[in-house]
Amino acid sequence: MPPSDRFVAETRFHVRYAETDAMGIVHHASYIVYFEEGRSAYARARGSSYAEFEATGVALAVIEVNARYLRPMRYDQVVVLHTWLEEIRSRGLTFAYEITEEASGIVCVSGQTRHVCINGEGRASMLPEQWRKWTLA
Amino acid sequence: MPPSDRFVAETRFHVRYAETDAMGIVHHASYIVYFEEGRSAYARARGSSYAEFEATGVALAVIEVNARYLRPMRYDQVVVLHTWLEEIRSRGLTFAYEITEEASGIVCVSGQTRHVCINGEGRASMLPEQWRKWTLA
Amino acid sequence: MPPSDRFVAETRFHVRYAETDAMGIVHHASYIVYFEEGRSAYARARGSSYAEFEATGVALAVIEVNARYLRPMRYDQVVVLHTWLEEIRSRGLTFAYEITEEASGIVCVSGQTRHVCINGEGRASMLPEQWRKWTLA
Amino acid sequence: MPPSDRFVAETRFHVRYAETDAMGIVHHASYIVYFEEGRSAYARARGSSYAEFEATGVALAVIEVNARYLRPMRYDQVVVLHTWLEEIRSRGLTFAYEITEEASGIVCVSGQTRHVCINGEGRASMLPEQWRKWTLA
Repeated sequence: MPPSDRFVAETRFHVRYAETDAMGIVHHASYIVYFEEGRSAYARARGSSYAEFEATGVALAVIEVNARYLRPMRYDQVVVLHTWLEEIRSRGLTFAYEITEEASGIVCVSGQTRHVCINGEGRASMLPEQWRKWTLA
Repeated sequence: MPPSDRFVAETRFHVRYAETDAMGIVHHASYIVYFEEGRSAYARARGSSYAEFEATGVALAVIEVNARYLRPMRYDQVVVLHTWLEEIRSRGLTFAYEITEEASGIVCVSGQTRHVCINGEGRASMLPEQWRKWTLA
Repeated sequence: MPPSDRFVAETRFHVRYAETDAMGIVHHASYIVYFEEGRSAYARARGSSYAEFEATGVALAVIEVNARYLRPMRYDQVVVLHTWLEEIRSRGLTFAYEITEEASGIVCVSGQTRHVCINGEGRASMLPEQWRKWTLA
Repeated sequence: MPPSDRFVAETRFHVRYAETDAMGIVHHASYIVYFEEGRSAYARARGSSYAEFEATGVALAVIEVNARYLRPMRYDQVVVLHTWLEEIRSRGLTFAYEITEEASGIVCVSGQTRHVCINGEGRASMLPEQWRKWTLA
C-alpha cells in the first residue's frame, strides 16, 4: 500500500495491446516500463522532469529491480500506478511502486527500483540540487 | 493533416524512456505501437472498445503498416495522436494517423494501417455490427 | 557465477538497437526479456520447449523478478546468457541468470525469476511430468 | 522472394515470448524490430557493423517503413530473415526484407525501410565510404 507519511505520485493509463503476450495478459517486463513511467510521473508531480535532470549532464542509472506479480492485468484495463520514494541519499535513491487495476481496485504488481546518480563518465555523482531537496514527505 | 470531413479521435501521452533508442530519439517501431494505441482511443471515443470487439470472438488482424518519419521525437515530449478511418468495408478497414509534438505543433510521423476482420479460425469475417455502423463521418 | 554442480544452459545473441535507450545503453527492461529467452533456451537444451509445455494446457506464471545491473551493455555487443534452475518444486521453480558481455567477459547483469505452474483457470497446478523429471543437476 | 542478382543476408532466431500478444501471435510491431535486426545482420555479413558506422559520427535515420503481414508467426518458431539492398544512393538506401517460418517455409511478412544518412546535426550526409562501396550485388 502506498505510504501515508510521504509524497505519492499517481498516474493512470490504459494497458496497450502490444504490452500483452500470448498468455492473454500483460507481459511481466511491461510492468518494469510502467515503473519507469511512474518515476517520470513522480518527477513531473514534483515540478521537475527527468529530461531536465539529464540535461544537466547526469543520469539516474538503475542498479536493481524487484517486482512481485500478484494478479494479471489485461488489454485496455486502466493501470493505477502509485510511485513514491522509499529512500533518498546524496548519490542515489530507491523508488517503490504499486499497481492497481482501476475497475476492481485489486493490487496486481508491486516493486522497487534502486538507482545511483552517475555523471558523463559513468561515475557515481551527487544528485542534482533540485532533487536533493526532495524529502520522503 | 487530419481530415475535417470525418470523425477524428485525439489522444495525448508522454514519450516513455523505454521507447527511445541509442540515437536519443523515439525508436521507429514505438510509433507503430502508438498507432495501435490510436486505434484503441478511436474505439473508446466511439463508445466502443477493442476489448469488447475481441470478446465477440473476432479480431482485427493487421495486414499492412506504412509509416513516414518526418521529425524525431524525444523522451518526455507529449505525443498528440490523431486517428481516423480512411476506409471502411464489410470485412476490413484502414486507419490513418498523424503524430504531432505538442509543444512545437510539428508533425513528426504519419501512417496508415490496413486490417481485416477475422474469426476464431483465422478466416475473413464481417465486422461486428457495432463497428459496421461507424461511418467515415 | 553459474554453478558447477548443475545443468546450465548457455545462449548467445547480439544486442538489438531497439533494446537500447537514450542513455546509449541497453534498457534495463530488455534484460528481463533476455531472462525469458534464457528460460526458452534452457527448455530447448533439456530437449523440451516452453511451447509444448503450454500446449498441455498449463502455463508458467512469473510471480517475482529480481535483477541487479552491474555494467551497461551496448548495441551489437554479444550477450552471453547462462540460465540454470535454482530451485524446483512440484508446483513451481526458480530460475537464475547471469549475463556476460562476450568480448570483455565482464558480468553485466544477474537475476532470478520465480514461477508457479498454473492451469487454464489460473490455479496453481503440478508441473508437467517432463519438467518434474528435471533435477537441478 | 529474395532476389538472386544481389547480396542477400540471412539470419535465423527464435520468436521470443515477449514479442507475442494476446492474439497468441507475434505482435506486428515486433517484425519492425526484426527488420532492424536484418540490417544489423546485413552489415555484419558485409564485414562491417552498424556500431562502427555510428562511431564515425553519422547515423542511418529511418524515413519510411512498409510491412505486409501475410501469415502469423508464434512463440518459439524460427524466423528466417532475408535482408537485401533494394537501392543505394550517395546519401541514403532502401532495404527490403522477407520473413519465412523455418519449419513450413511459408512467407509470413515482407517489407521495406528507407533511410537517409544524417550527421550529428541531423542533416543529410554522405554514406560512409565503406558502405558506399556496397553495390546491390
